[in-house]
Amino acid sequence: MRIVSSIAAMQQLAKKWRRAGKRIGFVPTMGYLHAGHMSLVKRARQAAGKSGGVVVSIYVNPTQFGPKEDFSKYPRDLKRDFKLCREAGVDVVFTPGNKEMYPRWGESLSSPEVKTAKKLGSTESRPTKFSTYIVEEKLSQSMEGASRPAHFRGVTTVVAKLFNIVLPDVAVFGAKDWQQAAIIKRMVADLNSPVKIIVAPTLRERDGLAMSSRNKYLTGDLRRQATVLWRAIQTARTAVKRSKTIPAAKLKSGLKKLIKTELDAKLDYVEFFVPDTLAPVLKVMRGTHMALAVFIGRTRLIDNARL
Amino acid sequence: MRIVSSIAAMQQLAKKWRRAGKRIGFVPTMGYLHAGHMSLVKRARQAAGKSGGVVVSIYVNPTQFGPKEDFSKYPRDLKRDFKLCREAGVDVVFTPGNKEMYPRWGESLSSPEVKTAKKLGSTESRPTKFSTYIVEEKLSQSMEGASRPAHFRGVTTVVAKLFNIVLPDVAVFGAKDWQQAAIIKRMVADLNSPVKIIVAPTLRERDGLAMSSRNKYLTGDLRRQATVLWRAIQTARTAVKRSKTIPAAKLKSGLKKLIKTELDAKLDYVEFFVPDTLAPVLKVMRGTHMALAVFIGRTRLIDNARL
Repeated sequence: MRIVSSIAAMQQLAKKWRRAGKRIGFVPTMGYLHAGHMSLVKRARQAAGKSGGVVVSIYVNPTQFGPKEDFSKYPRDLKRDFKLCREAGVDVVFTPGNKEMYPRWGESLSSPEVKTAKKLGSTESRPTKFSTYIVEEKLSQSMEGASRPAHFRGVTTVVAKLFNIVLPDVAVFGAKDWQQAAIIKRMVADLNSPVKIIVAPTLRERDGLAMSSRNKYLTGDLRRQATVLWRAIQTARTAVKRSKTIPAAKLKSGLKKLIKTELDAKLDYVEFFVPDTLAPVLKVMRGTHMALAVFIGRTRLIDNARL
Repeated sequence: MRIVSSIAAMQQLAKKWRRAGKRIGFVPTMGYLHAGHMSLVKRARQAAGKSGGVVVSIYVNPTQFGPKEDFSKYPRDLKRDFKLCREAGVDVVFTPGNKEMYPRWGESLSSPEVKTAKKLGSTESRPTKFSTYIVEEKLSQSMEGASRPAHFRGVTTVVAKLFNIVLPDVAVFGAKDWQQAAIIKRMVADLNSPVKIIVAPTLRERDGLAMSSRNKYLTGDLRRQATVLWRAIQTARTAVKRSKTIPAAKLKSGLKKLIKTELDAKLDYVEFFVPDTLAPVLKVMRGTHMALAVFIGRTRLIDNARL
């Protein structure tokens, strides 16, 4: 297994693979890998084939975190991640650095651009820095997009960058971030990216808690309380089985009550929508998709499922 | 020479070429080709090599025109364009249609997505359509970006799409659209697109008028008046040669007067800036870049040059 941290080296390797006719399977992650991630790696290997190349990127992308979010304390354990990737037969782990991913050109006073700018009497001391973003304007408005402004702009931008660097034939995303996967699929379709997107199922702990790197934050009784997201999904499923169609507002208020029963749980949102388009529905029935975000103490968890 | 209008066919051909180790040179255009375009084609052929593939796209991109601009009357002559491309040794002319480039999924009442959405009681009748844009936030604020809001968003988005479809190693842009070229270079750097950008010099008519498809609009005396853009550039050059540095404000007011001498000329802007970063300068000297936009009757012309 190779560990590559330079963008140019990764892109060159990808180009070499492509010229050799190797299929490239890609799993973008923020590291602190768990069994959920490893199931995506397995899926990427299936898609790339034995002779293909499987790339896992590990990059905690700053532009998708809000100023008050957990960017700096997001869990990191590269050594363990490398071990898991090696065991899973990953070919390359790509770990770029922030300075290369989001260069602030012109920050160094000695850069030739700044020199030219100064010589020409420019009124700007930092003439250039990173300034291009990919913005999905529709699917990213609701749910995570409403709660975390600029989050999806950061996600689509970094994913497009990673696609341009890793040049995958296939990229695998987890269904746990359902809205994110829908937005990535939309981006790929809208921008004609030559990448096939696979969305692989959420893996869960025995008690139903969706696997997430952020579960690490759940100490003491918070870990038990966190199962309320899964219990809410199960409750909604039972309700739909019983009554075939339920007004979304009614189901929502029932689930709010359920979540309130946990002392440290605070509902951010629960929504019912069409799976592909994320269009909200007034009536919930079989096939409707449900997603929710709940604070458990200071940890924000998300989950979703088809009802 | 092949004429390809389907996105999938173009992308497949590009992939085939890439697998075969063929270098791809690309010239994106809006058609109504003139000698300026053909010089870009020549440059693309140089870059791709004899055995490489040269692709010219002809697409009048609606998203880069404002609601009051000349999208519908923009000159078109595909037959002539094909002839010029054939003579220039172009391998493929790519002419996509608007419906494929900017699909309004869900517009057809019979689409499976709309059916699912309706069945699920969605509150939206047009659940999905094109919704992803690439936005450059810094270089696109001034000059053309100030005069034509959303213009560069349309340009960066369509160029990214075309890059994903044509998969070029090298793409050639004309220096006449200087700000556009700077923004494309920035986008490619920021998004790590595996494409090399070449900016080729502006071609001019004998009297200095920069070649442009929009010159077609210049009837009668307007054609003569249009040379005032080139005369303004020459005037600025002479001034810089004479006095080494001139305050930008002073030079600007002089050029405004010059442009006023033409009856049908109306200055939109004239700016002085650092060539790569577009950062405005207070003092104009050798090496400063100048750009201007002038209405000649109802036709808006642009030009630029290094002083």
